[in-house]
Amino acid sequence: MSAAIEVALIQDHHRGSAEANLAAIEVQLEAAAADGAQLVLLQELHNGPYFCQRQAPEEFDRAEAIPGPTSERLGATAKRLGIVIVASLFERRAAGLYHNTAVVLERDGSMVGKYRKMHIPDDPGYLEKFYFTPGDMGFHPIQTSVGKLGVLVCWDQWYPEAARLMALAGADVLLYPTAIGWDVRDSETERRNQRQAWILAQRGHAVSNGIPVMSCNRTGVEEDPTGRGPGIRFWGSSFICGPQGEFLAEAETDQPQLLRARLDLRHTEDVRRMWPFLRDRRIDAYQDLLKRFRD
Amino acid sequence: MSAAIEVALIQDHHRGSAEANLAAIEVQLEAAAADGAQLVLLQELHNGPYFCQRQAPEEFDRAEAIPGPTSERLGATAKRLGIVIVASLFERRAAGLYHNTAVVLERDGSMVGKYRKMHIPDDPGYLEKFYFTPGDMGFHPIQTSVGKLGVLVCWDQWYPEAARLMALAGADVLLYPTAIGWDVRDSETERRNQRQAWILAQRGHAVSNGIPVMSCNRTGVEEDPTGRGPGIRFWGSSFICGPQGEFLAEAETDQPQLLRARLDLRHTEDVRRMWPFLRDRRIDAYQDLLKRFRD
Repeated sequence: MSAAIEVALIQDHHRGSAEANLAAIEVQLEAAAADGAQLVLLQELHNGPYFCQRQAPEEFDRAEAIPGPTSERLGATAKRLGIVIVASLFERRAAGLYHNTAVVLERDGSMVGKYRKMHIPDDPGYLEKFYFTPGDMGFHPIQTSVGKLGVLVCWDQWYPEAARLMALAGADVLLYPTAIGWDVRDSETERRNQRQAWILAQRGHAVSNGIPVMSCNRTGVEEDPTGRGPGIRFWGSSFICGPQGEFLAEAETDQPQLLRARLDLRHTEDVRRMWPFLRDRRIDAYQDLLKRFRD
Repeated sequence: MSAAIEVALIQDHHRGSAEANLAAIEVQLEAAAADGAQLVLLQELHNGPYFCQRQAPEEFDRAEAIPGPTSERLGATAKRLGIVIVASLFERRAAGLYHNTAVVLERDGSMVGKYRKMHIPDDPGYLEKFYFTPGDMGFHPIQTSVGKLGVLVCWDQWYPEAARLMALAGADVLLYPTAIGWDVRDSETERRNQRQAWILAQRGHAVSNGIPVMSCNRTGVEEDPTGRGPGIRFWGSSFICGPQGEFLAEAETDQPQLLRARLDLRHTEDVRRMWPFLRDRRIDAYQDLLKRFRD
């Protein structure tokens, strides 16, 4: 374990095609590497639009095998730049079996692990249950040259169970590629509350587990292809925080941005010594966490 | 279930004796009731100092039976004012068997339930494992005339498991009597991070469970009776938030204060419909939450 990890994330908007997105991302990956980043997180489904606003079978054409063209391209970039990349892809596992999958590409270009999104949302504008089979690989951090990465995806970010399981398995940092935004018909108060809730839940995981968190969200507006809905104004606001939930870097709501921070793993050790939450968990009294509801 | 609950909490400092504390609290309970409060939360161990800065057998003399003098006195006040009171007491259960226990007093004066603090801290200034046997009653909300109360205590506030178990059992609101403050030798940054972490973790529980939270902390400075430590500057900052973690009321760091808010339970219903986290929990994959560590 190194004493610190130099990290970055790339908040971006959809640029119209996979090629345009990947080209822009590669420029930012180069900038991050040049600035000393060892680990870079990309946003959810970065090589395309957020296509889940409608249910349309042809959208499955966007999916690709893992390993496949995008993971191989990013693997080559990881090797060229000597960095670890965490990327989010639409995985085609078999006909009729697709996942929302994050992959971890080592600085030697190899794919050292993947995580299939476990919690799948489904609400207006985010019709994910049509597209994504819930993950079947559980919650396991991925060992890399810079540390053990607790990779989770988007909707997972609301679940303290997921964060805790990663921390209990020795994750050094939690990473959330994500895609969340506003329905512009909502009131300003509601929009503020939603964005704030999203930040709070993830900083809360940092605190409850004494672990740094990186969350990389989209920005920009994406229209509803059916023309019936209002589209989504992705709220950006990507951030990196330390093990007390303290902000280390924060992005704007409305523009592409490269964020950089240094994660001091010694600070994690110190925070957990004085606030040793893992010591006092009442594992004898948590059985009902395995129930849907206690009724 | 009523559509809303009018709530209050009383942030106070130690006034030198149980009698002085209870007299001041009763004045505030009257003010809260006069202002329409139906439910009032008191801070942790409100009828005395926070005595856990040292380990001293004579401090056990402060403990009392439940029901006992203080629960009966507060029960009478609850009946007189027609309010529900959540109070935190040092419980003597048997010789050598003591708990940190919260009691719920109904507006008819009866004690309708109690909760024994499940997670017990132990760190410099907070030597609680000497005094408090870990609770053996589990995590169960208490039904009252104003709703189902998810009563937890202080160190519990760092545990998403406790909040989740209360929400899964149908709690309408989470309530935390607490006593936490600064070591004045810490840097300003460290003090800011600690206070912020404490707020974040609890607002995070609100978000992750779509549930309002009330947290009532001490304020004021209490010296270390041994004269060896720096004492504790309790940071107040009691608050009430809604199911998106949105602040409804916030107290200052450094003064006694009565906070009031209205908890709109319809808002909880609406928030959970659009962000239905309980629907998508992966209870098939949470077994390792029952382990100390996944090694």
